[in-house]
Amino acid sequence: MSAIDFTVLRQDGATAARLGSLTTPHGRIDTPIFMPVGTQATVKAMTPEELREIGAQIILANTYHLYIRPGHELVARMGGLHRFMHWSGPILTDSGGFQVFSLGELRKISEEGVKFQSHLDGSYHFITPESAVAIQEALGGDIIMCFDECPPYPADYSYVRKSMELTTRWARRCKEAKRRGDQALFGIVQGGMHRDLRERSIADLCEIGFDGYALGGLSVGEEKPLMYEIMAACGPCLPTGQPRYVMGIGAPEDLIEGINAGFDMFDCVMPTRNARNGMLFTSFGRLNIKGAVYAEDRQPIDPECGCYVCKHYSRAYLRHLFRAGEILAARLNTYHNLFYYLSLMAGARAAIGSGTFARFRREFYAKRQGPTTGE
Amino acid sequence: MSAIDFTVLRQDGATAARLGSLTTPHGRIDTPIFMPVGTQATVKAMTPEELREIGAQIILANTYHLYIRPGHELVARMGGLHRFMHWSGPILTDSGGFQVFSLGELRKISEEGVKFQSHLDGSYHFITPESAVAIQEALGGDIIMCFDECPPYPADYSYVRKSMELTTRWARRCKEAKRRGDQALFGIVQGGMHRDLRERSIADLCEIGFDGYALGGLSVGEEKPLMYEIMAACGPCLPTGQPRYVMGIGAPEDLIEGINAGFDMFDCVMPTRNARNGMLFTSFGRLNIKGAVYAEDRQPIDPECGCYVCKHYSRAYLRHLFRAGEILAARLNTYHNLFYYLSLMAGARAAIGSGTFARFRREFYAKRQGPTTGE
Repeated sequence: MSAIDFTVLRQDGATAARLGSLTTPHGRIDTPIFMPVGTQATVKAMTPEELREIGAQIILANTYHLYIRPGHELVARMGGLHRFMHWSGPILTDSGGFQVFSLGELRKISEEGVKFQSHLDGSYHFITPESAVAIQEALGGDIIMCFDECPPYPADYSYVRKSMELTTRWARRCKEAKRRGDQALFGIVQGGMHRDLRERSIADLCEIGFDGYALGGLSVGEEKPLMYEIMAACGPCLPTGQPRYVMGIGAPEDLIEGINAGFDMFDCVMPTRNARNGMLFTSFGRLNIKGAVYAEDRQPIDPECGCYVCKHYSRAYLRHLFRAGEILAARLNTYHNLFYYLSLMAGARAAIGSGTFARFRREFYAKRQGPTTGE
Repeated sequence: MSAIDFTVLRQDGATAARLGSLTTPHGRIDTPIFMPVGTQATVKAMTPEELREIGAQIILANTYHLYIRPGHELVARMGGLHRFMHWSGPILTDSGGFQVFSLGELRKISEEGVKFQSHLDGSYHFITPESAVAIQEALGGDIIMCFDECPPYPADYSYVRKSMELTTRWARRCKEAKRRGDQALFGIVQGGMHRDLRERSIADLCEIGFDGYALGGLSVGEEKPLMYEIMAACGPCLPTGQPRYVMGIGAPEDLIEGINAGFDMFDCVMPTRNARNGMLFTSFGRLNIKGAVYAEDRQPIDPECGCYVCKHYSRAYLRHLFRAGEILAARLNTYHNLFYYLSLMAGARAAIGSGTFARFRREFYAKRQGPTTGE
């Protein structure tokens, strides 16, 4: 008995795209969906009410960061992540595997788990599949992830194979360690850019059996065509009746390709991080608000966008806020970028629902090939 | 014919406090009022909608900062400050005198005006009373301020006297330079901590005649009793029928004393700046959210506060956000602090209206003498 319930409402005819409905202990989610990233128990610069306002249905929180600060036990004593951060909707926590992988020289991998040093104070920590699950159970997200090893790119075949096999053994230990019945556990497919290893990973994970399956180890430096090839190859191998999630991607076009390959869930820091750097997403491509060309531009970021920011603020004002280092710049830019991502997902869902996703995808690319501004 | 209309609705019997109504081209203001500071055409970390939500009726913008960046002419071409920053309510612009004074070694004062170097790029600028008015006319605030010289503290009597006389000559030039009929011009009373010079300044400014009068040159390093003495001495000397404004103060108790002395308008960066440093205002005194004592504190900042932040977030979460350097920390802390200031003003108005301001003031102090937390 899974803590979640997933139904494919419509399978697109021309592509692998699918419209779905995912019910979690904290509410229902329409898929395909983008999950804003709330690394430290806050989606940077946004309130939960604003997230709701722009159509966020589920958010992601980072286990590694919360384990380090303020500590998962503190969060548990405060009533769990939902209550702590005042977000009553669904939450997915990653397992910390990717963050620990990102520590590079600061971590050492063994069969048992990973020893690493905190990026904050250099203190030593040891995380195992069992403790990664325990930490996520303390945090209390609706969906928790298996602890995985993410191989670097490029890496030789035998390293990637051994790493994938370790991830599979860890996945089994995660499933066995799981205690709470009100959380779903997703397996993470590894195997680098090798299709046969990916297929093997999927087969092994499916044999163990999880509530959903995620592609890990993408967007680690590979070219986009390769990333798309892996998504396209893996999508059809995954079980039809469970949610499919591509971790840590990506740009708007990456999401479109992920949906096209039959994936349902995505997360990425790109819309929020780029916002804080002044890079804004629009229907006609990207726009860098720092540009002198916007100094006296009375237009909104995207004339086709209906968000609060585009309704009330000019590019000239947003450029001024950004140059002045104002917090409101981070706020308004983040709000717009997340609105763009979530609206793109809503548009994709509507297109799948009406059997027009292939056209939606073509038009998405056609618009962006038109005249762009400022980059 | 003034661009504003001010009516004293009730004069307190026991104190000099008064309840008033100030009508400006962009709306009516209840006085006494606190004006959140929007230095660079944004009240740091807040949207205009949030300002409305917490009861802000008028905001202040800094002429010096906007002159330097993005430039008053750009703001004028973008339709003026209200439109540029999406704030449709009243705006008061200071004259830049205090900011230029704060530049210290970077400025040189003459009869004609002040030569100074930009704090951003070191470029040289010259501002005169006439150009200060022209800049403020370009920005388009509802209330503009005379260009003044703010003497340092301590300073010898003859320096303060000469400085005050210069400020008065500049005030006359400001009035003569003013062109727009839809802006009110306030004179600035100087004279340091010398009551006779303050009285002389008031008499001279009143002879010239302004739409309102402000005390400048306070909170420049003097002890609080001295500041209160100057407010108490100046209040009764100012015309009854026009708004009275104390510039750049202050702490909650300073506002209470200003109201007690018959002042109507206040501004200060304290609630916003302190918020960003983790210092929060409550009905029982100040609270530093960084404190380890709050690590697992489930209480809101102020159990007596009804603001959005106190309704939904614990001190534990706010401490976590602050320690993690999250933008949401600045947002929520600012929201609460401004709510506290604006609610304090609303409470004072209600008390004056019901003839109980003296008791309101006593209770304000009594509460803060009770057990305080964390400082």
